[in-house]
Amino acid sequence: MRILAAAITSTALLGCASTAPSAPEAATPAAPSPNIIFMIGDGMGFEYISAYRYAMSTLGDEQLAKTPFDDLLVGAATTYPDDDTWVTDSAAGATALATGVKSYNGAIGVDTNQAPQRTLMELARDHGWATGAVATVQVNHATPASFFTHHPSRDLYNDIADSYATQVANGGWRFDVLLGGGYDYFHRDDKNWLPELEQQGLPVVTSLDDLAEHTQTPVMGLFAPKALPFAIDDKPGRLANMTTHALRLLTEQSATKGKPFALMVEGSMIDWCGHANDIACAVHEMADFAAAVQVVRDYIAEHPNTLLVITADHSTGGLTLGQGGEYAWYSDKVNAISQSIEGIATHLFDVPRQQWRAYVEDKLAFRLTSKQWKQLGEVKLDKELQGRDRLKPIHQVLVRIISEHTRTGWTTGGHTAVDVPVMASGPGAEAFKGYIDNTDIAKALLKLVR
Amino acid sequence: MRILAAAITSTALLGCASTAPSAPEAATPAAPSPNIIFMIGDGMGFEYISAYRYAMSTLGDEQLAKTPFDDLLVGAATTYPDDDTWVTDSAAGATALATGVKSYNGAIGVDTNQAPQRTLMELARDHGWATGAVATVQVNHATPASFFTHHPSRDLYNDIADSYATQVANGGWRFDVLLGGGYDYFHRDDKNWLPELEQQGLPVVTSLDDLAEHTQTPVMGLFAPKALPFAIDDKPGRLANMTTHALRLLTEQSATKGKPFALMVEGSMIDWCGHANDIACAVHEMADFAAAVQVVRDYIAEHPNTLLVITADHSTGGLTLGQGGEYAWYSDKVNAISQSIEGIATHLFDVPRQQWRAYVEDKLAFRLTSKQWKQLGEVKLDKELQGRDRLKPIHQVLVRIISEHTRTGWTTGGHTAVDVPVMASGPGAEAFKGYIDNTDIAKALLKLVR
Repeated sequence: MRILAAAITSTALLGCASTAPSAPEAATPAAPSPNIIFMIGDGMGFEYISAYRYAMSTLGDEQLAKTPFDDLLVGAATTYPDDDTWVTDSAAGATALATGVKSYNGAIGVDTNQAPQRTLMELARDHGWATGAVATVQVNHATPASFFTHHPSRDLYNDIADSYATQVANGGWRFDVLLGGGYDYFHRDDKNWLPELEQQGLPVVTSLDDLAEHTQTPVMGLFAPKALPFAIDDKPGRLANMTTHALRLLTEQSATKGKPFALMVEGSMIDWCGHANDIACAVHEMADFAAAVQVVRDYIAEHPNTLLVITADHSTGGLTLGQGGEYAWYSDKVNAISQSIEGIATHLFDVPRQQWRAYVEDKLAFRLTSKQWKQLGEVKLDKELQGRDRLKPIHQVLVRIISEHTRTGWTTGGHTAVDVPVMASGPGAEAFKGYIDNTDIAKALLKLVR
Repeated sequence: MRILAAAITSTALLGCASTAPSAPEAATPAAPSPNIIFMIGDGMGFEYISAYRYAMSTLGDEQLAKTPFDDLLVGAATTYPDDDTWVTDSAAGATALATGVKSYNGAIGVDTNQAPQRTLMELARDHGWATGAVATVQVNHATPASFFTHHPSRDLYNDIADSYATQVANGGWRFDVLLGGGYDYFHRDDKNWLPELEQQGLPVVTSLDDLAEHTQTPVMGLFAPKALPFAIDDKPGRLANMTTHALRLLTEQSATKGKPFALMVEGSMIDWCGHANDIACAVHEMADFAAAVQVVRDYIAEHPNTLLVITADHSTGGLTLGQGGEYAWYSDKVNAISQSIEGIATHLFDVPRQQWRAYVEDKLAFRLTSKQWKQLGEVKLDKELQGRDRLKPIHQVLVRIISEHTRTGWTTGGHTAVDVPVMASGPGAEAFKGYIDNTDIAKALLKLVR
């Protein structure tokens, strides 16, 4: 649990960012536009913040741990799409947050009629701002894609990659900084973009060490074939690291241009842990996201003319901290788990059954009951299946075992319609108060770009 | 769904209460103390507000329905008790909200050492304020009890009733107005308080019609043997009705005393519907609570020196709007349900099996699938059991059927540890912003009493 400990320390040192902005809702024409940092915890419903805070705290201590979110909360947002359901997907959610227009589930920067809608990043770029995005999944995934491109379906991963790799009609790239995973989409059998991009002045860096040395924009960083590993299975601090360098590069570019910047930072895989009903995975992604929020707050302490807005596109999994009638949620047991369920299942699939129990008990940090071991022992595997499908039988049993052990509740492998948190600080933060709609967030941000 | 329609109309007419209070956190000594109206939705997590809003709205309409909550949301609160768990019960939750002191689950106005803690209502009374409470459960239930009395256990219903019925050591009653259910606790085999109370100047009214005529304080209103019926099974507007009369009587008393008043209003049975995993029941209780919030907002429009704070003691049931992987929550199907699960189960228990299907399909407003009918038909009843226990087998099947039909998710029959909404408007509302603890809410309120 190194990453959680790191986040605690970082938070304890904080206390500097502004909490109660006194500026009027929209700056007067004379006021310089603020930088905009828009952070999206994909799937980060209120319950994920509760889980993160309790996971960082120790039962019986006088006080709960502070988190970088605490003094930023200003309201909540509805997330429903323009579709035949109240439950949004990440594409419609991101499109609403990027353009201020609701659309159908699956839409990338287009409305219900598939007409492209001007995004926050496009408007910023047109006004000469520096723009960028950071994600822990592939950069051509729904959330970042909806801020820069326009496609009828989120599934068109190659088309989205091609959009990123193509300069816009009036010249120039769609972004100054784009960091995340997705190398394989730019280096495909049918098309290898890398030499072309290098030649046209858009270098692609592929290691975080190289990124640390990099000083020029535009730049694309692709640090994994598709998504980065889950935070619980990875080195700590990857989103904070990418965010630090995005801020460095955008600040430089912004100074050169004499204009503000707009940056979108996505804690992308909170959602994936939610889909997987994996609470330890979710808490580690929250810690990863919180560490990036802390980086941004530290930046804002030095650059106060910056608006920070944090929200989620929806909540995932129907997470709650309580299950099966018991009045408890065992944060200590969650903290003790040291691998994602997907990681455990992937390992188990390939090793003999007699190694299973020791491995699972090591990773979950508790002795399985005989009933739990029986459930796991009875899992039937199908070696013909591919990818996650073949892990599913193991995965489902591990979810049940961990839920029972930690008293974590889940209701779905999909998304839910519940409202999500809205946090804000800095110039213009007043616009995000109370209950608002996800499109209102985008509309307020778009107003600030001029 | 008459009550929801009424709430919509009432809300549409609104738009008057203040939303962005500009007063400093604590009024200066010279400023007159505001009235305090503290509204507690028992079990009302964020997800209940989402459910209520979507239930009032129509999928495909241009806009969602407005609710009386929308512009009041200012933050969220942690709810953990001083106990060996992060999950609070309603007694520790109410004690924290009434006294600013965390305690063990079950505690009524006492700390972990069972020492009585000064409550908001006691402090207000000592300062000459008028005080009162309204609830939809028995007045001696955990939440109202924690604002006026001190007992080591919430289960001591008779002792709590005796406290209400006994004048305090320095003379006088503990409240000016106390309205809810619980008649049977004051009219017991071992003790009938009613003649004594009448004689000592504390009349007990037992019908809402009589309450409407009543003009004197103190007064106790006991409108049901124990709790009132669930809102879905009752006439609409009961909490709004009681709140209207509590405000009328307290305003009068307050004017006489030349002092403000403090009123606690509990939407008590949101929690009970959550425990029952009954979504239609929960939405109707939310509508009942929202109508009371609207009454208070209308009052505040005429009496602006009034602080309104709304929160929950915890969330119940692990409710989410999404279940079983489907990206949907069917608000229309929830709205079509016309009886509580408890009401349906109670009826089924006493009628022949051949009448079950027609009755259930009428109350749930849909045709059971053959699988669902089979599940219901296979329920085994035990006529030896008493009360809710004997209804349990029917109840569990109906929860499963309704969850699947409406895609409502539940994870527990108990409470959860997730943070709850905090809403505020009026003088002093600034103190409730962002993430705070439930004890901070009480501390901020206590400061205003002088």
